[in-house]
Amino acid sequence: MQKPSLPSGTRDFGPEVYQKRKSIMNVMERVFKLHGFVGIETPALENLTTLQGKYGDEGDQLLFKVLNSGEYLSKVTEQSLQQINYSEITPQIASRGLRYDLTVPLARFVVMNRSNLNFPFKRFQMQPVWRADRPQKGRYREFWQCDVDIVGSKHLLSEAELVEMYAEVFEELGLGVEIKINHRKILDAFLPLSGGEASWNSFMQAIDKFDKIGKDGVAKELEQRQLTHMIEAWNRWCEIADLGNINDVLSGIRSIEEIQNEHLEEGIQSVTRLWDLLEDFPQVKLDLRLARGLSYYTGCVFEVVPNDKRLPKDFKIGSIGGGGRYDNLTGIFGLKDVSGVGVSFGLDRIYDTLEACDDTSNEAVEHGVLICSMLESAEVRAFEIAKFLRKKGIQVEVYPGSVKLKKQLDYANATQKRFALILGESELENGTISIKDLKSGSQQESAQDSLLEVLQNA
Amino acid sequence: MQKPSLPSGTRDFGPEVYQKRKSIMNVMERVFKLHGFVGIETPALENLTTLQGKYGDEGDQLLFKVLNSGEYLSKVTEQSLQQINYSEITPQIASRGLRYDLTVPLARFVVMNRSNLNFPFKRFQMQPVWRADRPQKGRYREFWQCDVDIVGSKHLLSEAELVEMYAEVFEELGLGVEIKINHRKILDAFLPLSGGEASWNSFMQAIDKFDKIGKDGVAKELEQRQLTHMIEAWNRWCEIADLGNINDVLSGIRSIEEIQNEHLEEGIQSVTRLWDLLEDFPQVKLDLRLARGLSYYTGCVFEVVPNDKRLPKDFKIGSIGGGGRYDNLTGIFGLKDVSGVGVSFGLDRIYDTLEACDDTSNEAVEHGVLICSMLESAEVRAFEIAKFLRKKGIQVEVYPGSVKLKKQLDYANATQKRFALILGESELENGTISIKDLKSGSQQESAQDSLLEVLQNA
Repeated sequence: MQKPSLPSGTRDFGPEVYQKRKSIMNVMERVFKLHGFVGIETPALENLTTLQGKYGDEGDQLLFKVLNSGEYLSKVTEQSLQQINYSEITPQIASRGLRYDLTVPLARFVVMNRSNLNFPFKRFQMQPVWRADRPQKGRYREFWQCDVDIVGSKHLLSEAELVEMYAEVFEELGLGVEIKINHRKILDAFLPLSGGEASWNSFMQAIDKFDKIGKDGVAKELEQRQLTHMIEAWNRWCEIADLGNINDVLSGIRSIEEIQNEHLEEGIQSVTRLWDLLEDFPQVKLDLRLARGLSYYTGCVFEVVPNDKRLPKDFKIGSIGGGGRYDNLTGIFGLKDVSGVGVSFGLDRIYDTLEACDDTSNEAVEHGVLICSMLESAEVRAFEIAKFLRKKGIQVEVYPGSVKLKKQLDYANATQKRFALILGESELENGTISIKDLKSGSQQESAQDSLLEVLQNA
Repeated sequence: MQKPSLPSGTRDFGPEVYQKRKSIMNVMERVFKLHGFVGIETPALENLTTLQGKYGDEGDQLLFKVLNSGEYLSKVTEQSLQQINYSEITPQIASRGLRYDLTVPLARFVVMNRSNLNFPFKRFQMQPVWRADRPQKGRYREFWQCDVDIVGSKHLLSEAELVEMYAEVFEELGLGVEIKINHRKILDAFLPLSGGEASWNSFMQAIDKFDKIGKDGVAKELEQRQLTHMIEAWNRWCEIADLGNINDVLSGIRSIEEIQNEHLEEGIQSVTRLWDLLEDFPQVKLDLRLARGLSYYTGCVFEVVPNDKRLPKDFKIGSIGGGGRYDNLTGIFGLKDVSGVGVSFGLDRIYDTLEACDDTSNEAVEHGVLICSMLESAEVRAFEIAKFLRKKGIQVEVYPGSVKLKKQLDYANATQKRFALILGESELENGTISIKDLKSGSQQESAQDSLLEVLQNA
């Protein structure tokens, strides 16, 4: 007999984990809705023509492809089969794939539904995505993304709102975080210094590693990348970044003569205006070294990292959220000039971080009830009492079967019930019910009429 | 430029549909939890070894298979390729598939986690499933199932609880339904009459069509199936079934001498006991003609059909829920003697039925607010006011950008806001705010301090 198993990189979520993840998503959805965002869901299956070519070559490799139904080889030429020519065979045998992220489906959705949407279109979407990546600790092949985007607004208020929502969600989750912000146009200022776009991209890739390898690590990296001429600028950049106060940092940038240009000035002004809107949020930090890998960001970029005091010193997880402004979301599907800004919440990592905080303060106090009927003739009454209590909003189960009391009480404790109501022969005769408080261990016999009162006052 | 599209049989859920579906699922989850059920989620991707052979040959054909990564043809022999031998090629190139239902994943989950679960294990699960079926009206390739099962209980209270939950969910949704119940052991009584298991199965398939083709239709069907000798019994069965009153029906069954046996008596006693528990539910009906296709049911079977008075006469949808007791859920994975009972809620059909009822009574009354800043210098104040109101639980958006008021009000109306708060030059000077009631059309200028009061008293 086969021993069942799960595909590598996938997980079951058992009852406890399900409930905790659900609570996190409920907090998010509540905040999103208070800000006027609306939810959408897109199918897991997308046409591969929709997905391919959107995530770079590496991304295309990581797409899960779904085998066509029926005689899927019928369109493949004999020659392709003989030569095992994958680039000819694969498109013929698989026309659909699994969603790789929530951004491309959003773009497709906006293009297909543009005449029915209100712009700016503020949508949230919380669904799993699939990537055929090598699984490792904290990296799964099936994992959840929670995305919030404002499509069709070029205004900086939209950036501010997303940052505010980050702050609100993590505050409500009780998790200390730092929200890092930078602006692509501030980083663009290095373009002339670096000596061309290729060098600039290489420079960005190097400084993107700052979090992991530190200032000197980046300097070494720059040397290896033959960007030795940038090391001095990098060191100076770090000095300015470390000034802390936003005004000092911005005047520091303005003091580097070689990089001043219109772009930089635009970036600085955006950041200044954003800070006017966000002055109440001490967890928001300008981080000049934040680059964000994705090259399609054109304005502000964001990243959230946990800095909760309860986290163990050796806890490492990277960012638990990120995003930015993009200028051409839907261009890939032929709809031009749709600007937007969006952020993502990394549900799996947020869950792991909260677990690492070992937070028990938010755990629900259980007031559930198990009704133990000790004989078959008590079942109808047990069922009636359960119905009555549930109408009062109390979680109630009737143990199915009049088995030994010990077994029933074990179940009550295992499922974290607060009370056991016992219906035995004497209770049936007297029209009473025995109430056992599983927390204190005390037990009392009560008239059925006063049951609710006894439970509520315990 | 490609025009994007969706794979056949899949759907996007836009904001309105998303919200309505979510509300339905929230009702379910609330009821499930009141009954002490816990939620789990299993991955969309399962090993094909887990899925195959569980749904019959037809089911195996309908499984979506996921192409292995990398050089997926490397394990296929040249000979299989030349002969296009699918039964040899497919297992080599696809080792995973998409979840086909929630029952097999439940069985796998129970077997893999049995030492950590409390039995009876009462779980709910609401997730999409995938079937490579021919799409048609109301039938999708990606659709949702909402399943509730009680695993490891043989007691009839479990059946009663599931029926009660059906009643509660549909009551809370405001949808009139009939909950049909039958017992496999009552139908088994026809086994000797029909003349063998094959004929009996054929008889069941025929009577399963009663809903669609009626009594005489079934009689014709029996003739075609060479079960002419069963037509008399069928007619008599219908007479008894139509008696209505449960006691009359049960004594009617007892009056057919040829079918009396231990099995039948067990079925009748189960139904009698169930009715003792469910006497408060007028929507529950014993339906002797309910067969349910799936052959693995061994005790009670259930089916829910809408009978809401608001439904148009020509509305046809079949059942919106169903289930039953099974005796060997986990045997397929080597864990024997695990009995269970479960029901499914057909989310898509429930949604369609509610839509057909054209019910507007449950639509949320919107009290959302749009803040219109008429000049850039008002933005910080707009942002502050929004934050303040949201803390009071009010849905608020600030329109991103100080564009023409008409455009902002159009957006407020399109997104169903109740109020527009206008911050123009005079309001900024006077420290006031103009409140436009979008329902009545009236507008007043108010001190900022009294804003909340004005909104709440409107």
